[in-house]
Amino acid sequence: MKFDIDIPGIIKSIKEKDCKIAGVQFPEGLKRQAIRIAGIIEEKTGADVIISGNPCFGACDIDTALAAKVDMLFHFGHSQMGVHENVVFIEARSNVDVIPAVRAALEQIKEDKIGVITTVQHIHRLKDVCAFLRENGKECIVGKGDLRVGYPGQVLGCNFTAARVDCTEILYVGSGMFHPLGVAIATGKRVIAADPYLKTAVEVNPERLQRIRGGYIARSMDAKIFGIIVSSKTGQERMELAMKLRDIAVKHGKEAHILMMDLVTPDQLLNFKADAYVNTACPRITIDDAERFHVPVLTPQEFEVAVGEKEWDGIEMDEILDSI
Amino acid sequence: MKFDIDIPGIIKSIKEKDCKIAGVQFPEGLKRQAIRIAGIIEEKTGADVIISGNPCFGACDIDTALAAKVDMLFHFGHSQMGVHENVVFIEARSNVDVIPAVRAALEQIKEDKIGVITTVQHIHRLKDVCAFLRENGKECIVGKGDLRVGYPGQVLGCNFTAARVDCTEILYVGSGMFHPLGVAIATGKRVIAADPYLKTAVEVNPERLQRIRGGYIARSMDAKIFGIIVSSKTGQERMELAMKLRDIAVKHGKEAHILMMDLVTPDQLLNFKADAYVNTACPRITIDDAERFHVPVLTPQEFEVAVGEKEWDGIEMDEILDSI
Repeated sequence: MKFDIDIPGIIKSIKEKDCKIAGVQFPEGLKRQAIRIAGIIEEKTGADVIISGNPCFGACDIDTALAAKVDMLFHFGHSQMGVHENVVFIEARSNVDVIPAVRAALEQIKEDKIGVITTVQHIHRLKDVCAFLRENGKECIVGKGDLRVGYPGQVLGCNFTAARVDCTEILYVGSGMFHPLGVAIATGKRVIAADPYLKTAVEVNPERLQRIRGGYIARSMDAKIFGIIVSSKTGQERMELAMKLRDIAVKHGKEAHILMMDLVTPDQLLNFKADAYVNTACPRITIDDAERFHVPVLTPQEFEVAVGEKEWDGIEMDEILDSI
Repeated sequence: MKFDIDIPGIIKSIKEKDCKIAGVQFPEGLKRQAIRIAGIIEEKTGADVIISGNPCFGACDIDTALAAKVDMLFHFGHSQMGVHENVVFIEARSNVDVIPAVRAALEQIKEDKIGVITTVQHIHRLKDVCAFLRENGKECIVGKGDLRVGYPGQVLGCNFTAARVDCTEILYVGSGMFHPLGVAIATGKRVIAADPYLKTAVEVNPERLQRIRGGYIARSMDAKIFGIIVSSKTGQERMELAMKLRDIAVKHGKEAHILMMDLVTPDQLLNFKADAYVNTACPRITIDDAERFHVPVLTPQEFEVAVGEKEWDGIEMDEILDSI
């Protein structure tokens, strides 16, 4: 996997703003480049560079402690989310050709009109994707999404608003199954996932995930004590929601306690004696790490079903919308 | 292991200060009590209680994100370190009888005069220890320590100043070998470690640790790129030292980059491509986790030896003194 990162732009902006001390923060997949990039910036600008050593999984995850120590913090790999005084978002653009995967998807598209979505790494290829689809007789719809997402057509692990467009089929261009599964569940649309690295396309089937999540809900119904997880990360903190969930728990005769934490890990939850958890932090943790938790960890929506606040009517995705 | 925690004191202070929202933070060993204690506080005071879910290893490790969200943060298990506007330190006092272990130590004490040290869990037993020693014909010295430690005779994993007293033998009362080994190395004194839980006493022998640390220094001598770790935790941040170490690295023809992080873990360091690290965060991490790191992680003193800034003259302990 190769990415294009605008290093000259960073150097220019450090010089222009007379930045003496710069922070750099990389997501896990780009961390191996951290020392090399820090070295280039130091050499070309004379600024001191401090590297964030903390885990980083998204634009919601700004190293605020480092930002407070430096003149400018360069956050790599994600598109801007929210306003931070001295944080500059440096996107990483994959240089893989996405067209072979879209070509593979073409024969699976049933309708004449299709919504197209992708992640920030491929967002610059979206116009090529649409041109290709049009050449092949398809009408292409790119949803604007809400204010949490940086670009039209962009989806996040916690935000599928760009897929809420007027059509019944969606083409997802990108790797991984989390986003296309999320879109299929959140919108009820038929979703084709085209993976540019594998150059293949498949129709996603959310049934297995539905069944698994239903299992976690069932296992939580007898829980007496719930832990309600709130993240302290700038873009994930949903304390108000957590307080609301606690009131719901109490209303249904459950004990519930709010746990605030930075990184939510299975190891940390092991220490607390709750029978089940609700996660209001990054929704991907609930789904991706499900098997690694020692007790069920539910989404807010699943929790409401488990305690009897609402009826089970199929799985809903937990999204964080632009109100945060 | 049982601990006495002053819950009525917490309830009184919440009521007196009209605290509406309280945070509670527990070290790993006390976390399993978190939900129970949070429940009692909520029931008795009506305040909302938020539990810190983050790892916590000492008084240097205040959950500042949580402190910013609550009226009062109760930090359990450690004695006060530094001044924090709304943080109250709630010590945990072990109720184990320490005298059987001290009795076992008695026959190993060679001199008439002995320095006595312990950790905060047993600090309330220090007067009993001294009374017992005096009854048995020993003069007992309790060092004041510097301002980083909360009580005379108290040692921390990063501060052995209470053991720098006028005698050649030290009696350590407490569990674990880190503190007594540290004292033996830091002071050069003979140290007897009396473990109240095991009711046994042994003379500590720092030779093995000396040899191991010498090995890490030797393995770092050819390193080209050093990562210099700085903690963002309130009581551990030594950025000035890190900058000084970076200058030393450069002087000796090494490349060095500063990494700032909250929790220092072997997993996180795996992501970065440095040949060796220097840890300016909690000194215990360097020693306790040594085998879990994929490359050598040195103390600042060891680093200076590795790059040739100073001669190897036996191991030194890395201490954080009250200047921080």
